Amino acid sequence: MQEQLQELLSRIKPAEKSLGLMAQAHLDDLTKPQGSLGRLEEIALKYVLATGSFKPVLSRKKICCFAADHGVAAEGVSAYPAEVTPQMVYNMLGGGAAINVLTRHAGVDLDVVDMGVNHDFPDHPCLLKRKVRPGSANMATGPAMTVNDTLQAVFYGAGIAVDAHKAGYHLLGTGEMGIANTTPATALYSVLLDLPVESITGRGTGIDDARLEHKKEVIRRSLEINASRCSTPLGALASLGGYEIAAIAGFILGAASCRLPVVADGFISSAGAVAALKLCPDAGDYLFFSHLSNEQGHRTVMEKLGARPILDLDLRLGEGTGAALAMQIIEAAVKVYNEMATFSSAGVSEKSDE
Amino acid sequence: MQEQLQELLSRIKPAEKSLGLMAQAHLDDLTKPQGSLGRLEEIALKYVLATGSFKPVLSRKKICCFAADHGVAAEGVSAYPAEVTPQMVYNMLGGGAAINVLTRHAGVDLDVVDMGVNHDFPDHPCLLKRKVRPGSANMATGPAMTVNDTLQAVFYGAGIAVDAHKAGYHLLGTGEMGIANTTPATALYSVLLDLPVESITGRGTGIDDARLEHKKEVIRRSLEINASRCSTPLGALASLGGYEIAAIAGFILGAASCRLPVVADGFISSAGAVAALKLCPDAGDYLFFSHLSNEQGHRTVMEKLGARPILDLDLRLGEGTGAALAMQIIEAAVKVYNEMATFSSAGVSEKSDE
Repeated sequence: MQEQLQELLSRIKPAEKSLGLMAQAHLDDLTKPQGSLGRLEEIALKYVLATGSFKPVLSRKKICCFAADHGVAAEGVSAYPAEVTPQMVYNMLGGGAAINVLTRHAGVDLDVVDMGVNHDFPDHPCLLKRKVRPGSANMATGPAMTVNDTLQAVFYGAGIAVDAHKAGYHLLGTGEMGIANTTPATALYSVLLDLPVESITGRGTGIDDARLEHKKEVIRRSLEINASRCSTPLGALASLGGYEIAAIAGFILGAASCRLPVVADGFISSAGAVAALKLCPDAGDYLFFSHLSNEQGHRTVMEKLGARPILDLDLRLGEGTGAALAMQIIEAAVKVYNEMATFSSAGVSEKSDE
Repeated sequence: MQEQLQELLSRIKPAEKSLGLMAQAHLDDLTKPQGSLGRLEEIALKYVLATGSFKPVLSRKKICCFAADHGVAAEGVSAYPAEVTPQMVYNMLGGGAAINVLTRHAGVDLDVVDMGVNHDFPDHPCLLKRKVRPGSANMATGPAMTVNDTLQAVFYGAGIAVDAHKAGYHLLGTGEMGIANTTPATALYSVLLDLPVESITGRGTGIDDARLEHKKEVIRRSLEINASRCSTPLGALASLGGYEIAAIAGFILGAASCRLPVVADGFISSAGAVAALKLCPDAGDYLFFSHLSNEQGHRTVMEKLGARPILDLDLRLGEGTGAALAMQIIEAAVKVYNEMATFSSAGVSEKSDE
């Protein structure tokens, strides 16, 4: 399976930077002062280079919300019981969750992917069944997943992205659902980005002070017990991750391998993104960070990556909610690039002091 | 005309705060950890209180882009010649400006309003003709407008908002076009918010260092020559404003008088908003600031107002571009409030540690 991973990574090429000058000249010829659309211009430029198309199309968008349970939930690190993971999957399939509202709003298709929920779901047109195991093992007592199971989750994620590209999607987004999953995400950040547990551990769905201290202790214990397995990004992902996080890493790598831009949601999705970037830094050319999560630690993580997320709305829900909103901004940016008049075509005078 | 202003202001009532507890309880019953949708929840709550409706409707949205010329352009404070104001109005009527792209994207109707452009436009279905004068006078040599002309612009703006309410719009946004108009906007901020010219004067459409120093000098001269007329908000608006800025102030007041939420665009629109708030602080209950402009000074202005704009995308174009994008976020927030399932309806377990 390691060969299959190398094959996936080898298909990821840097973005088509040779288009940069021409695309920037086009942006500068649009009827606005140069640079006055700020980050919309940066986003449009990144989208052009990623797709390698001087006239990019962006209409079909999809978010995949990856769901899984976590053995570490048994340590009492979350404010909600583990049964909420399948309940929320049903809520998403029924159309009542926040991600349903926001994907409908943004014109984004939604698939829910069972990567490892401790429940057997009936068939549903919006549910992809990719269960590797019915939940990870407790990382506080050993590795959360085996390396082979982790690779299986990565390949499932990558395959879903490649299929979406074949189906004609132009922009993908990540989302996740999994009770207790801020705990593995935080552990992963600590190892992959060398960040202190104390400063990046937050309240997740809303735990109190005592449980927050307990959560930090559980994360420290998990790091200690898995230390010998965390010398590679894949080893860390297996030991401290989860099936949805591994799938998100794979989804991002799969999208990058097709030159398909992809939007990471919040705190958990960014952990999958960091794993993907550690496996293949060039994947960053295809990756947008949607929003700065209100979960403590996300700001530190974004600063460490040198990333500036598109939105800052104090969201801390996950599911893909921030990705859905950011996809609207990315679509707006590409439309500005594609649809605005140029100075010459509109008969507008150019700047007079240069 | 002063009586007519008092009558307009007297129609503005504070938002319906008695709905607050019930609306917050509804938000807390939606299938997400309490508060986890952050600013979307704050925005939905503000929208509910503004409209006074526990089940608010938000579908029809309109931006009015107010255009005017400025006598102070003769001082050479802008990088673009004044003829660009009518050229850009034509560009908007032709559908090629950034605001056309972004309103189409966001499903927002657009009207362009000639408040004082130095050009006679032919009739066009998207153009409202409300010209008070073909441009303001040069504020560096005397008052930009008379008080009566200013009031006329305020009433035109208010009337357009009231008409939009009657026509069934649920959310309005402001925009503007007017070469040199960062100069009067900066002068207004300095007087109305007691801010130093040095720190809040920016490069507008992109002037160089020498012209920036000259712009500051022109603003200081304008403040000095008009000092005796600036003891009231209306006097300041007349002496240092412009027809589009006065119309934006009136538009916000008119919207507030109908309990119709309204979104201020960027640096110039916020100056109209500050004038409106100085005339009637309760108008703030109906007002959203769309984005933090990249124009120097806007951050200081927002901090002085205690406002946190919805977006931060380094925009500095105006036209209503930031308002269009923020309207999508506001619509998303209201949909979350209206469309999400509740814990009981979805059969999802609640938090276990409280």
